[in-house]
Amino acid sequence: MRPSIFTIARVVLLLFIVLAVVPAAFAADRDKLLSEPGVYGTFAAFSLDADWGRQEQAIRIGQLNMLRGVVEQHREKVAIDLYLLRGLSDHADLLFRIHATELRDTQQFLLDLQSSLFGKHLKTDGVMHGLTKKANYVPGMPDNIKAELKTPSEPGSKPYAIVIPIRKSADWWGLDQDKRAAMMQEHTEATLPYLKSVKRKLYHSSGLDDLDFITYFETSKLEDFHSLVLALEKVKEFQYTRRFGHPTLLGTARSLDEIIEILAQ
Amino acid sequence: MRPSIFTIARVVLLLFIVLAVVPAAFAADRDKLLSEPGVYGTFAAFSLDADWGRQEQAIRIGQLNMLRGVVEQHREKVAIDLYLLRGLSDHADLLFRIHATELRDTQQFLLDLQSSLFGKHLKTDGVMHGLTKKANYVPGMPDNIKAELKTPSEPGSKPYAIVIPIRKSADWWGLDQDKRAAMMQEHTEATLPYLKSVKRKLYHSSGLDDLDFITYFETSKLEDFHSLVLALEKVKEFQYTRRFGHPTLLGTARSLDEIIEILAQ
Amino acid sequence: MRPSIFTIARVVLLLFIVLAVVPAAFAADRDKLLSEPGVYGTFAAFSLDADWGRQEQAIRIGQLNMLRGVVEQHREKVAIDLYLLRGLSDHADLLFRIHATELRDTQQFLLDLQSSLFGKHLKTDGVMHGLTKKANYVPGMPDNIKAELKTPSEPGSKPYAIVIPIRKSADWWGLDQDKRAAMMQEHTEATLPYLKSVKRKLYHSSGLDDLDFITYFETSKLEDFHSLVLALEKVKEFQYTRRFGHPTLLGTARSLDEIIEILAQ
Amino acid sequence: MRPSIFTIARVVLLLFIVLAVVPAAFAADRDKLLSEPGVYGTFAAFSLDADWGRQEQAIRIGQLNMLRGVVEQHREKVAIDLYLLRGLSDHADLLFRIHATELRDTQQFLLDLQSSLFGKHLKTDGVMHGLTKKANYVPGMPDNIKAELKTPSEPGSKPYAIVIPIRKSADWWGLDQDKRAAMMQEHTEATLPYLKSVKRKLYHSSGLDDLDFITYFETSKLEDFHSLVLALEKVKEFQYTRRFGHPTLLGTARSLDEIIEILAQ
Amino acid sequence: MRPSIFTIARVVLLLFIVLAVVPAAFAADRDKLLSEPGVYGTFAAFSLDADWGRQEQAIRIGQLNMLRGVVEQHREKVAIDLYLLRGLSDHADLLFRIHATELRDTQQFLLDLQSSLFGKHLKTDGVMHGLTKKANYVPGMPDNIKAELKTPSEPGSKPYAIVIPIRKSADWWGLDQDKRAAMMQEHTEATLPYLKSVKRKLYHSSGLDDLDFITYFETSKLEDFHSLVLALEKVKEFQYTRRFGHPTLLGTARSLDEIIEILAQ
Repeated sequence: MRPSIFTIARVVLLLFIVLAVVPAAFAADRDKLLSEPGVYGTFAAFSLDADWGRQEQAIRIGQLNMLRGVVEQHREKVAIDLYLLRGLSDHADLLFRIHATELRDTQQFLLDLQSSLFGKHLKTDGVMHGLTKKANYVPGMPDNIKAELKTPSEPGSKPYAIVIPIRKSADWWGLDQDKRAAMMQEHTEATLPYLKSVKRKLYHSSGLDDLDFITYFETSKLEDFHSLVLALEKVKEFQYTRRFGHPTLLGTARSLDEIIEILAQ
Repeated sequence: MRPSIFTIARVVLLLFIVLAVVPAAFAADRDKLLSEPGVYGTFAAFSLDADWGRQEQAIRIGQLNMLRGVVEQHREKVAIDLYLLRGLSDHADLLFRIHATELRDTQQFLLDLQSSLFGKHLKTDGVMHGLTKKANYVPGMPDNIKAELKTPSEPGSKPYAIVIPIRKSADWWGLDQDKRAAMMQEHTEATLPYLKSVKRKLYHSSGLDDLDFITYFETSKLEDFHSLVLALEKVKEFQYTRRFGHPTLLGTARSLDEIIEILAQ
Repeated sequence: MRPSIFTIARVVLLLFIVLAVVPAAFAADRDKLLSEPGVYGTFAAFSLDADWGRQEQAIRIGQLNMLRGVVEQHREKVAIDLYLLRGLSDHADLLFRIHATELRDTQQFLLDLQSSLFGKHLKTDGVMHGLTKKANYVPGMPDNIKAELKTPSEPGSKPYAIVIPIRKSADWWGLDQDKRAAMMQEHTEATLPYLKSVKRKLYHSSGLDDLDFITYFETSKLEDFHSLVLALEKVKEFQYTRRFGHPTLLGTARSLDEIIEILAQ
Repeated sequence: MRPSIFTIARVVLLLFIVLAVVPAAFAADRDKLLSEPGVYGTFAAFSLDADWGRQEQAIRIGQLNMLRGVVEQHREKVAIDLYLLRGLSDHADLLFRIHATELRDTQQFLLDLQSSLFGKHLKTDGVMHGLTKKANYVPGMPDNIKAELKTPSEPGSKPYAIVIPIRKSADWWGLDQDKRAAMMQEHTEATLPYLKSVKRKLYHSSGLDDLDFITYFETSKLEDFHSLVLALEKVKEFQYTRRFGHPTLLGTARSLDEIIEILAQ
Repeated sequence: MRPSIFTIARVVLLLFIVLAVVPAAFAADRDKLLSEPGVYGTFAAFSLDADWGRQEQAIRIGQLNMLRGVVEQHREKVAIDLYLLRGLSDHADLLFRIHATELRDTQQFLLDLQSSLFGKHLKTDGVMHGLTKKANYVPGMPDNIKAELKTPSEPGSKPYAIVIPIRKSADWWGLDQDKRAAMMQEHTEATLPYLKSVKRKLYHSSGLDDLDFITYFETSKLEDFHSLVLALEKVKEFQYTRRFGHPTLLGTARSLDEIIEILAQ
């Protein structure tokens, strides 16, 4: 590809941003928040209003530095991940995934975000909450499957992220535990071929939102992710799913710097 | 946490607000309104418009004092509780819970609220009404369960509040009274383990809104609340629920002063 | 209640309004329109736009006098009732109930309303039409029930009004006439205890809107109205109702003068 | 009715409009387009934006003459009918019914309409397309019914027009042809009493929009139309209808001159 | 048709546009992207905001040249097709169909589009993604059908394009492979009479969006397309379709130059 005016503009912009002051921050114990049970995960999707793009670039860069400030400030307590939905999902531009031990901390971050000069351009498209739990192996699950489930996903960047909210039918919850367990084993087996290329994380939502589960995926191979979903549609448990998606959020994981660079343009 | 610029700004702001004149008020008999049958409970959720945050802080503080005035004025007749939804629920920022013996009094409060300088920035997201009734114990409910139901919830603040509107199916109402009673006993038993950590209140809505019930919860342990909802999804009565949530409103209970402080920022 | 600044403002305002010129008008034969069969009833719900409240009071009062003028002008042909929904229903502030022998006359009134200076601030939230018919007693309905149905409702003001649109299922219309009649008798019997405290009126809508019926209620005892709806949910005919409400409109009946006074604030 | 200021304003306005230049036009063969099979009928519903009514009358009249110009220009190729929905239907003010032999011609008309100075105030509320086909008599339909179906509707103006979009269930299309034919005969017989007072026209939509049929009615007796719909709800075929209306569009047929006069006010 | 003022304006405008500088571009291997399996197809529908049409023509032409620039720039990596929906579909004006080997490239194009001066007037109405796969012939499909399916569609322009999103029911995915195959054979046979006049392309969506398939059609004979859809509604497989359309997007395929010419007016 020839270097284009677009590319050059990006480089110049990046310089501007890197020169901005990045405040020091004691990061929350991110690893623990992202791996332990009993942690609340919040998915908050926002759109930028029409005024955002009409402001001069210098003003936008100033406001984006406010975004940086709010994120850095709260990283002491909560773990924050950012995703760019614009171009891949309808009606939302940005997704924040926030892990915290108390939803009050998440609320305080989002309050500060929304009352910042940057946040005044954000329209809330959706907020979903879920709780992480210990993997609850189906009783009688064969040991080889349990072992296989511990396979780590392939190393390397997984640029695509997908969030699919799920609500089960009342019939599902009305089944006795054995039947649910048998179906979950079939469900689990269907996922085995994709353990390496698609990373998954489950959040339990009942009562915290109009959902039962939030399923989160990361992959560099969307075709594998598509095959995984097709496989899950074919197991019996899927017939007890009343809502799958609506919305399905598809985006790309981005660092705070990348988000700021893109929105500054 | 290091004291930050954000924290300092909050303290300064608080001083400003505390110095504002708080009019004296004869409070409605709040305890009676919150505990007796035959009282109307209204849940009114509002969003702030985009102009709100664009006003200068001094103007916002002036308008928030109008909010204080309207609330104080009406506290003579109705009991008013406030909740901050922003950051935890989509599309609504504030929730007012209003208890009154006549809905006309509630309407007058909301009219005055909306025609105040503060209220002109509010967009109504939803209004739901319900009526409190005497606990209607299922005939034949064992005495030990009845006794247990009188367990008071643990003392101490319960910062989280959740509102879940409910509509039963036509099949539910078509069941004969015995079958409904048996299922309600199973439902009640499922709630027993959570009586201490999750406080509940029920409002009857049929005809006053597009609902049959409004269920209201307070807790400091969201995980317990989540487990309670999971338990309720598994009893038979849940299969006769046509609408559960939509929306589920999750927020934090806040005093009028806290709300004013947060919105002033 | 201590006389408050709010109360004083209302009195001053009332004086202003009463001094405005009220044009003489030959009223339509309101009693006939409200009692005879073959009359079209239209329920038109409106919200005020955000600009309304931002205008100076003098300008608002001027526009409200335009509202008065349009209503007075059309009262020659149509019967017009007003209801205040704000504070009790979501997303609509005002409800007009219009009775006319031809929907063209109703359309002309609403056109003139919407093109008035006041009407330019109205957003249409919903328009429903129905036709009044002679009470069609179920064949075989016992004479004592027929007699009881003629009980007039208690005299005295009934400040609350509720509008519930209804759509029956295709199965309902597919039943043979006898089965429908038997179920309507059960439905009718369930309403008898509430004849005195809840006044009812029925409009037939099929084809005129996406409804089959519009049910209209007036009461001073909302608790009785709630009990009536609960009783109607329990009869067999309710299982053939596909839509009940959505929206349920709850408001207070107000004179034109009261509406003008409230909106002038 | 006493001549009122409203009436006088209308007469003055009419003079203004009639004096505007009406360009000569070779009309499309309107009769053929409205009677032959293989013609596309488009129903396009629009609302006027809030700015429309805030413009001065002279400017509005100028823009309405642009509307006249666009309509006259395209009448060479397409047949255009106008309906006033405002006051009778929610959320749409105007309905254009356009008949053309190619949808490209309809698109060109609507493009020119929307890019005119008048069209810049239009918000598209809905566009539906259907195709006219030869009446497809049910095999075995008795000759007397076939004859009766040719009864022309009563002469004289039919001011009311109603558009009801229809989607059949998958079960309907899965029935064998004989069963569908038998049910269509029952449906047809139910319409016979209303042939004189209610004029009907059918458009086939599958694939052109999210519908299977668009049904269009004209009448001067809305009560007869209501009775016709009630009769159609009672035949067996109705149980295979998944969507009936949503929206039902009810309006009054108006000439271009009438529409211009009304919108100029 | 007489040459009209409209026609003359178009010619003048076209001259303006052709004189604008068209940057040279290395086109992506469009033929491969449009014919091979493993390619992602994105359908992104946009509306123009109300401000667009209020700008002076010279400004609009400048912004449209930005559109041209963004499209030319990205044609190195992705294949871009444009469709005009305005006038034929509700609520969307433009449709972009983008083929790419990685959705990141599609996202980058849409990001650059939306941050261009032209893109600031676009509101996203919907984004759908699907993956092309090798034709997966039903096992046991007779050879003559396989041969017939290779019939190329008639040459010549196919101005109309239709996009129909599809979601199958859980029951569909729960069927065993043989039953699905038998139904797909019946489905395929129903399409044979329309192979020549209606060109089709299938995209697999599960997991990438709230759909299972996106079906895309091109034709010059909308009546044939309508007959094809009718035929598909009658096969058994259709009963396992939970969503068909919603929205159905109907438009006309247009070159970038045509789109620019139309929007410049």
